[in-house]
Amino acid sequence: MKVLITGGGGFLGRRLAARLLRLGTLGNAASHVEKIERITLFDKVPASGFDDPRIEVVTGDVNDSATLAQVIDAETASIFHLAAVVSSQAEEDFDLGLSINVDASRRLFELCRKLGHRPKVIFASSVAVYGGALPDVVRDDTALAPKSSYGVQKAVVELLLSDYSRKGFIDGRAFRLPTISVRPGKPNKAASSFASGIIREPLNGEESVCPVTPDEILWLMSPRQAIECLIHGHDLDAEAFGQPPVINLPGVSVSVREMVDVLGKVAGESATRLIRWQADPAVQRIIHSWPRRWDMSRAQALGFEGDADFESIVRAFIKDDQGSGIR
Amino acid sequence: MKVLITGGGGFLGRRLAARLLRLGTLGNAASHVEKIERITLFDKVPASGFDDPRIEVVTGDVNDSATLAQVIDAETASIFHLAAVVSSQAEEDFDLGLSINVDASRRLFELCRKLGHRPKVIFASSVAVYGGALPDVVRDDTALAPKSSYGVQKAVVELLLSDYSRKGFIDGRAFRLPTISVRPGKPNKAASSFASGIIREPLNGEESVCPVTPDEILWLMSPRQAIECLIHGHDLDAEAFGQPPVINLPGVSVSVREMVDVLGKVAGESATRLIRWQADPAVQRIIHSWPRRWDMSRAQALGFEGDADFESIVRAFIKDDQGSGIR
Repeated sequence: MKVLITGGGGFLGRRLAARLLRLGTLGNAASHVEKIERITLFDKVPASGFDDPRIEVVTGDVNDSATLAQVIDAETASIFHLAAVVSSQAEEDFDLGLSINVDASRRLFELCRKLGHRPKVIFASSVAVYGGALPDVVRDDTALAPKSSYGVQKAVVELLLSDYSRKGFIDGRAFRLPTISVRPGKPNKAASSFASGIIREPLNGEESVCPVTPDEILWLMSPRQAIECLIHGHDLDAEAFGQPPVINLPGVSVSVREMVDVLGKVAGESATRLIRWQADPAVQRIIHSWPRRWDMSRAQALGFEGDADFESIVRAFIKDDQGSGIR
Repeated sequence: MKVLITGGGGFLGRRLAARLLRLGTLGNAASHVEKIERITLFDKVPASGFDDPRIEVVTGDVNDSATLAQVIDAETASIFHLAAVVSSQAEEDFDLGLSINVDASRRLFELCRKLGHRPKVIFASSVAVYGGALPDVVRDDTALAPKSSYGVQKAVVELLLSDYSRKGFIDGRAFRLPTISVRPGKPNKAASSFASGIIREPLNGEESVCPVTPDEILWLMSPRQAIECLIHGHDLDAEAFGQPPVINLPGVSVSVREMVDVLGKVAGESATRLIRWQADPAVQRIIHSWPRRWDMSRAQALGFEGDADFESIVRAFIKDDQGSGIR
């Protein structure tokens, strides 16, 4: 089988590819397991660091139909659609957000539909689809009231993916990822970028700005567990999901204060002093509009697994992304 | 002020235009009332029957950017966006539904955004945005889980309209119309077409097929009241709505059996014998997925008014659309 990963040059895309190479197959024993012959990593920046004949790196704009059409063909069985403009950037550049987050997704669905064999499309959605007055506990079917363009765009694609799936054009599944922490690399334009930065930078002995107050609650998942969930969500049969095939993935609910406490426990108090508290009302407004408590019964019944706690998340980051330099 | 009505050749569009001509103004006394200088009726079929210098009839495809751009200019203050592909047709022709119901709406929002003066855009949405497992009582903020392409497309446009409004590009409002009954004219491809046909045809001495069982519950509004609600929704200030500016309009909840009873009361038992009961599972499935009970407190607090009961609806049809021929 051939697998396409859009956003394949990003850190989640590369990590997913590495995991798939190690697995060698996709599917579940009860219905169908298939050998992975080819993984195409499609992104505007080339995915580097792979030395495996199964990996094909293609550089291009996900919003360019012709290029996109070249990476989807009759052998394409599964697509992990991770390419996106992140939240703060989608808020700053409305047109870019719509064009990458909505138009490119729809064009991808259309290309899949034309294949005729109903490929699997795994869409990375976001908890930013929620907003406004929320119930005490958020469920998969809680009303969507996104307060950001990013959230609106993800909600629109979820609706389209569900309808393309209901019509039998694709076998789509959308997974609402918690905020991914700890991301390796540099800060990005996501409003939640600090949720990685306040751990990652101090662990590297660098200063990091925290734009929200310590009482803000985040809903987090490690990159490692996010990858496991995307693969698990791929491997389930379509019937497991019902309609709409949209699932909130299980995160860890933690306050910024608790995150800093864990940082202190893992790396010492000196690390926590590298956090500079400098509130940014625009970021705080977005973060504060996201839900705090979640009903994970559907995800759990389907076998999705989150991280044990925030300390496991930090230790996973140190192991996966920092070598074994710190403890 | 200049007013544009898309779908202006349709029966709601023409009726809205006639009502606006009689009113002569739009707006509310507390903030701003403006004289209507021009009403452009834009549709693929020319709107006929007007003899008023304020009416401009333009024939064109709402999905053709160039034509659409010609009917929106710096003086366009308000747009009633009624043009749509109806439910059964959107289900049959997926591409046509997406292109008219989603793409044309978005193109309209873009043209409005370019004007720079934040025109009012009144979007006729539908209760078909709901579906699946519903709470006992449906509220404006009940989760959307459309089970039809039409419902998905309306939900997508609601999301986009809300975001274009939040960003200050347009002053958008979306009103979810109950099923309009009794529509004059011919049956159309809406799944709910029978909700007019089983009254209209027998009143005209003609046979009509009812594709659902008598226990199905419909949520209905007369064309007359729908027009009043669209105008009321236009005239309210943006601040009245909050975010998202999406309102369920007040309908009348009635079973198909009760509708037939009213027909018998108004036109005699012989009229009811003109209904041929012939279940259509595809139509019944769509109708049955729509909600039955509604919380109308938000609409009522904003001053929207529905019909008194189904008998008033039938009598309004006879008065408005049939002359005074029957009783």
